[in-house]
Amino acid sequence: MKLSIVALAALAASNVQAFTMAPSGVAQRTALRMAVEEKEAKEIRVGVIGCGRIGIVHLGAITKAPNVTPVIVSNPTVSKAEAAAAQFGVPKFTSDAMDVITDPDVDAVWICSPSSFHAEQIKACAANGKHVFCEKPLATDLAETVEAINACNEAGVKLMTGLQRRFDPNFKRVRTAIDEKEVGDTIMIKLCSRDPSPPPFEYVKGGGGIFADMAVHDLDMSRFLAGEDPIDILAVGSCHIDKSIEVLDGSEKFDTASCIVRYPNGVQAMVDVCRQSSYGYDQRAEVLGTSGMIATDNVYPNTAKIYKTSFTGNADMPYDFFLSRYTEAYVTETVAFCESLVNDTPVPCTGQDGLAALIMALAADKSAEENRWVSFKEIVESIYCSDPMNCEILPMDVFPAGFQPASDPKDLLTDDVDTVKEKAAGVN
Amino acid sequence: MKLSIVALAALAASNVQAFTMAPSGVAQRTALRMAVEEKEAKEIRVGVIGCGRIGIVHLGAITKAPNVTPVIVSNPTVSKAEAAAAQFGVPKFTSDAMDVITDPDVDAVWICSPSSFHAEQIKACAANGKHVFCEKPLATDLAETVEAINACNEAGVKLMTGLQRRFDPNFKRVRTAIDEKEVGDTIMIKLCSRDPSPPPFEYVKGGGGIFADMAVHDLDMSRFLAGEDPIDILAVGSCHIDKSIEVLDGSEKFDTASCIVRYPNGVQAMVDVCRQSSYGYDQRAEVLGTSGMIATDNVYPNTAKIYKTSFTGNADMPYDFFLSRYTEAYVTETVAFCESLVNDTPVPCTGQDGLAALIMALAADKSAEENRWVSFKEIVESIYCSDPMNCEILPMDVFPAGFQPASDPKDLLTDDVDTVKEKAAGVN
Amino acid sequence: MKLSIVALAALAASNVQAFTMAPSGVAQRTALRMAVEEKEAKEIRVGVIGCGRIGIVHLGAITKAPNVTPVIVSNPTVSKAEAAAAQFGVPKFTSDAMDVITDPDVDAVWICSPSSFHAEQIKACAANGKHVFCEKPLATDLAETVEAINACNEAGVKLMTGLQRRFDPNFKRVRTAIDEKEVGDTIMIKLCSRDPSPPPFEYVKGGGGIFADMAVHDLDMSRFLAGEDPIDILAVGSCHIDKSIEVLDGSEKFDTASCIVRYPNGVQAMVDVCRQSSYGYDQRAEVLGTSGMIATDNVYPNTAKIYKTSFTGNADMPYDFFLSRYTEAYVTETVAFCESLVNDTPVPCTGQDGLAALIMALAADKSAEENRWVSFKEIVESIYCSDPMNCEILPMDVFPAGFQPASDPKDLLTDDVDTVKEKAAGVN
Amino acid sequence: MKLSIVALAALAASNVQAFTMAPSGVAQRTALRMAVEEKEAKEIRVGVIGCGRIGIVHLGAITKAPNVTPVIVSNPTVSKAEAAAAQFGVPKFTSDAMDVITDPDVDAVWICSPSSFHAEQIKACAANGKHVFCEKPLATDLAETVEAINACNEAGVKLMTGLQRRFDPNFKRVRTAIDEKEVGDTIMIKLCSRDPSPPPFEYVKGGGGIFADMAVHDLDMSRFLAGEDPIDILAVGSCHIDKSIEVLDGSEKFDTASCIVRYPNGVQAMVDVCRQSSYGYDQRAEVLGTSGMIATDNVYPNTAKIYKTSFTGNADMPYDFFLSRYTEAYVTETVAFCESLVNDTPVPCTGQDGLAALIMALAADKSAEENRWVSFKEIVESIYCSDPMNCEILPMDVFPAGFQPASDPKDLLTDDVDTVKEKAAGVN
Repeated sequence: MKLSIVALAALAASNVQAFTMAPSGVAQRTALRMAVEEKEAKEIRVGVIGCGRIGIVHLGAITKAPNVTPVIVSNPTVSKAEAAAAQFGVPKFTSDAMDVITDPDVDAVWICSPSSFHAEQIKACAANGKHVFCEKPLATDLAETVEAINACNEAGVKLMTGLQRRFDPNFKRVRTAIDEKEVGDTIMIKLCSRDPSPPPFEYVKGGGGIFADMAVHDLDMSRFLAGEDPIDILAVGSCHIDKSIEVLDGSEKFDTASCIVRYPNGVQAMVDVCRQSSYGYDQRAEVLGTSGMIATDNVYPNTAKIYKTSFTGNADMPYDFFLSRYTEAYVTETVAFCESLVNDTPVPCTGQDGLAALIMALAADKSAEENRWVSFKEIVESIYCSDPMNCEILPMDVFPAGFQPASDPKDLLTDDVDTVKEKAAGVN
Repeated sequence: MKLSIVALAALAASNVQAFTMAPSGVAQRTALRMAVEEKEAKEIRVGVIGCGRIGIVHLGAITKAPNVTPVIVSNPTVSKAEAAAAQFGVPKFTSDAMDVITDPDVDAVWICSPSSFHAEQIKACAANGKHVFCEKPLATDLAETVEAINACNEAGVKLMTGLQRRFDPNFKRVRTAIDEKEVGDTIMIKLCSRDPSPPPFEYVKGGGGIFADMAVHDLDMSRFLAGEDPIDILAVGSCHIDKSIEVLDGSEKFDTASCIVRYPNGVQAMVDVCRQSSYGYDQRAEVLGTSGMIATDNVYPNTAKIYKTSFTGNADMPYDFFLSRYTEAYVTETVAFCESLVNDTPVPCTGQDGLAALIMALAADKSAEENRWVSFKEIVESIYCSDPMNCEILPMDVFPAGFQPASDPKDLLTDDVDTVKEKAAGVN
Repeated sequence: MKLSIVALAALAASNVQAFTMAPSGVAQRTALRMAVEEKEAKEIRVGVIGCGRIGIVHLGAITKAPNVTPVIVSNPTVSKAEAAAAQFGVPKFTSDAMDVITDPDVDAVWICSPSSFHAEQIKACAANGKHVFCEKPLATDLAETVEAINACNEAGVKLMTGLQRRFDPNFKRVRTAIDEKEVGDTIMIKLCSRDPSPPPFEYVKGGGGIFADMAVHDLDMSRFLAGEDPIDILAVGSCHIDKSIEVLDGSEKFDTASCIVRYPNGVQAMVDVCRQSSYGYDQRAEVLGTSGMIATDNVYPNTAKIYKTSFTGNADMPYDFFLSRYTEAYVTETVAFCESLVNDTPVPCTGQDGLAALIMALAADKSAEENRWVSFKEIVESIYCSDPMNCEILPMDVFPAGFQPASDPKDLLTDDVDTVKEKAAGVN
Repeated sequence: MKLSIVALAALAASNVQAFTMAPSGVAQRTALRMAVEEKEAKEIRVGVIGCGRIGIVHLGAITKAPNVTPVIVSNPTVSKAEAAAAQFGVPKFTSDAMDVITDPDVDAVWICSPSSFHAEQIKACAANGKHVFCEKPLATDLAETVEAINACNEAGVKLMTGLQRRFDPNFKRVRTAIDEKEVGDTIMIKLCSRDPSPPPFEYVKGGGGIFADMAVHDLDMSRFLAGEDPIDILAVGSCHIDKSIEVLDGSEKFDTASCIVRYPNGVQAMVDVCRQSSYGYDQRAEVLGTSGMIATDNVYPNTAKIYKTSFTGNADMPYDFFLSRYTEAYVTETVAFCESLVNDTPVPCTGQDGLAALIMALAADKSAEENRWVSFKEIVESIYCSDPMNCEILPMDVFPAGFQPASDPKDLLTDDVDTVKEKAAGVN
């Protein structure tokens, strides 16, 4: 890792590209690692923050993972926590997320609270030496995302970003085809996401826009399938369904959007999203390679087809939305993190993955706003960190002459616990 | 060919298994062959009897075949003949089928009249030395069918039975798979035929029943795909749609039927038919072999699929009935016979094929009536011919001791013109 | 229920159609019912006999069912029982099935042992007042099947037959379509089952033949979909794959078979099975109704399609055999029986269902042997019971004049516990 | 029509937006109209220039169209013309295209020569008062395209552009769905075109680039489906298959390209093309509307699916390239123009449609070159016409102050013969 997070205080002195890792930080991390390592042979005990629909899905998955036990759950409306505890035999429940984070019996925390709480809860977990699974997004703001990830990295705890689509058997099959060159070298990636119906005005307003709250999954998927970091993006949006959102700012006023993302070696990704599909949740991928194509279709609850006077087709509609469509993926995802915890193997979907997804969404936003290609570098370069956990977004012209900001997402982050371990192994 | 058509007059004399070909018959045939052979290099001139829907389809196909010219058409309602002549530039039209059959300019006749006229018209064609294409069935009665085929064989004219399904690209593809052992050796053949809606009571009454007027196509197809003559059949019928037909006799009272046909080497064919499918014309085949399966689906006018709130499936219904579904097959069939005429190559679907199909239908009828396996031999053995063109159906107990009827359809027939030619070539 | 199980001892006396329930039997049953009822509010504690593949699947399902706890597992090779106990946190394990059956902590037993042990174990469970889930078949012999079911009925314990296909979402969807008249009134049911490859000679020999060990599932499914008891059957078999089995008896020498089953109201079911499909496990259903058709297809692990130079089609093969194809069905089935136990609701797939399936298989066998339609009545009428738990199969001519055997499967059985309860409720 | 073709000579004088139609031009047109109108009731006699593959397809189609007769064909290699004449019974053949164009027996000419000859031949047809069917493109250069179309318009002859995809039953079905609002109001149009394998280097070099020689069909299709003129385009290209073309200029160096086209009301069209698909010719369309989606798939020669040990899928590959895939479309297209000629109804695919397609391709080229959105207006505004048949492309800064070029393709053209007729009808 080329450390290029910048301490603003150091700017006057020289053309520094990175902050120097404070000795205390290293020491703290090492100490935590020890504690973690001691636990490795043990059962992993887990707390879950948030007992809404998605929290319940993860809690159910946790009960199925070997060597992992849920010990406490929290929810602001405590009755929901109590009900979840009863349903899954969890011994403790609480209304206060901090009870979970500070519980000495807890090794790892699943953050399934609303997005606005994510960053603070991740940081609190890191401060308490807890591993973290956090539902996407890690934070609602770019600087906070970097800080939250670095908090985990500095604390030496694992952080997994919940990008569940990567664990869906259909998308995974496409990735496998690419890995095994079943269709040769990738030429083009096409992704289509359509929600069954638009969210309420209140959800859209302040939600960050169609790229951050919806297309972000597809942008991440394009990066997952490309297996590389993207170069730049061209995005465009429009409004077709409910014209009331046209008064909103930025990409919040779009219910439909298209993007082209350029990857190294001329690989192109085309993404199109719409907030209404009428015919159920539409989630498809297609990859053209030099020797063939692979494409996935939507998922139906059964294979039955019906033939009637007026139509012939599927007997039932496809799964209606993400909870039904991705039930298996949510379980697989949580089980994968549990395995990573139990065996101390690398996290399958890292904080850096979460950061990259956010950067892609922000670049799409800017592209649609300014009607031009926007490089991801542009977004990365707007971040300034005076230390790994102290970042802010600044306009370019604030930089003094000679200062060179980070242009690659990974240069914003310190090494995560798996990388530290890997490097240490390499040294020995 | 083992000649086993029996002259009843000869029964008392000895255990004769076949009639003796009259010298005059042979002479006649040879004379006609000469005439036909002289024509071979020439353009084939064609007459069409019947300008209903199917006649028009064949007439259209004839105009597309190279070296074939329609010269006369007939229809009882002469205005339809006139209109057809105008549409396809045919020089002559008439209300009288015999004008077509006796026209000295005509080399071959397409018989597209109602079934009840077929046998007489085939015989008249043979008597006038004309090649014959006859829409299925060749006759409505078994004895007449044998007589009609033998009339052509004796006259040395080609006779093609219009079993158009054999020329459909989907069924042909299955046959090709079998021929080329793409799925190994055939284990099981499954055929499903469903008409969009039941014919009127008047059509059903006297139509010969569901096996003769509907399943006959599937029974023939099973034989075409098996590539062998069948052994026996088990059939069962029922009535579900319009109970008014339950008063009718035999299999006329069924609108639904299932058959199992046994072929040599344990090959089984399952056929199911129904006079109503609600969802359009349903025509599917499936063949299981020792190394795989091949199956065809119905044909749609385009590939469009539509996705709506209430269903996802084909944008349009499949082709609605035989004329639209088999348009291409009718054309291919007629073009194939034209090629056979122009090049004097073997007829692609012979009179014997038509006879076998009828025998299968009759056996099915008997099986459904008597609730037992019926061998095709049983049906064949009921036919007695005092000479090739003089046959009747008799009950078994009329036979004197020692008489052995024919048990194979081909033993009822004299050699057709292509076989004669082939044997002659073999001799040289 | 019209009791028509016959005490042979009573034959001389009069034309008795049923045995008289012994007072002791009633008493015993009532006593057991009390015990069972007391347990009803409690958690159900379960034992599992057999830790082979299918036992493990059921054990996994049991751990997912609410209010059900596995307390003991057995397997002759005790190490497999120990491993299963460890994997699913079951406190006790043993090599002896009787330890499970007699364990006072056990309320219900899952019998997942080889078929030859089923009948004895069911009876032992009944004798010990345990509810029973038994994998298909309940016994290998018709008389024993009746005895085993009646043992449960007399003891007042629930008995569920493991016909898992009824719980598969695809077949269930077809049943739902029929129940809700989505395709109108049923006209024809078509079922196709093909195993990926033939079992070893040793499995086939003595296995009961292709109808009992394979087609029985499809025969049961036809009855499940028809929603009625069948009338008669016509079956035919052949051998195509491995000719070594042709030396075996009865339908053991077939690797391929077709059946037509007739149901009331002219409904026909066509079933075809083959022990080799080359292309994976093939399990399809199709139902034609008066207003449409519904059909299911095989199940693939994902929706991906691949397009290459040499072919375009599914990226992966369908599920390869019953354990992968019906994983979900096995779980659903066990969960359904758990619910029946916890809530004391009727068993979803009864002993009588298991009996009917066996009778259908036996009738198919006889039909294929004798090349004729065999009514199910014929099979039922061959059973003689001197009391509900003492039955044997006798040839018809042993019956004295005037004796009338049972002709309906349900007349062979005493009321099961759910029926007793229902009738009692009706009385009150 | 707002006439805005500019006479450069008039620029100094005033801010003229259109040339003044010369009285002689009007007179000439009127005279020709008279001649054409006299012919209307007659049979249409046709000449065909070019007897390559596509010429033969059109010639075959012409023979099927009612009231249309081919009278002469030409080809530089005269033996091909002779063979074509023999095959389709055309009385005259020649090596010289001008023999066709000047033949007094010819009413309409099908131009199926190489693209570089199109413009001159169209003009020659116009000069000789012949209606013109011209394979796409009308000319290889924008100015020549305008001139060629105007030549026809001035001469009052019909001009049809051969954009055959509009006549394919699959694409037409999508258009019908849009016209009939089957999926509501259009939100997004997605088109995918992939050739089976890249053309030779020599074809690519000088061929105009991937947008003009390949994507132009999809760009036209997006406009056909949108039913409106587009606003601007964003295009991007890359090279993946044969790197040797990377030395070429502009979009000739791309074998892969993506475009987003913006239409009025926020409608977006996404187009992606590739010169290699490995799995045959890939031609798909998808339209999302406010109440559903419609999508087409590739076309296969039959419906057979095959199931083998290693794969399950289509028994055959899709049609391999445009001649097989669009055979029916070529025929329908030619028949449609024949009908337009016979009945003097409007041309189904006009010269203006051909011009718009070229402008879209040129804008795509510019966008890919300059990495920015390019409006179609930009391209249109670069054209200067001193009179309808005298145009050239000039850089913007040559324009004197006050001059306002045409910004809409239709403003570059004079009224075509159908519009003239329509307006005349309106006046009366």
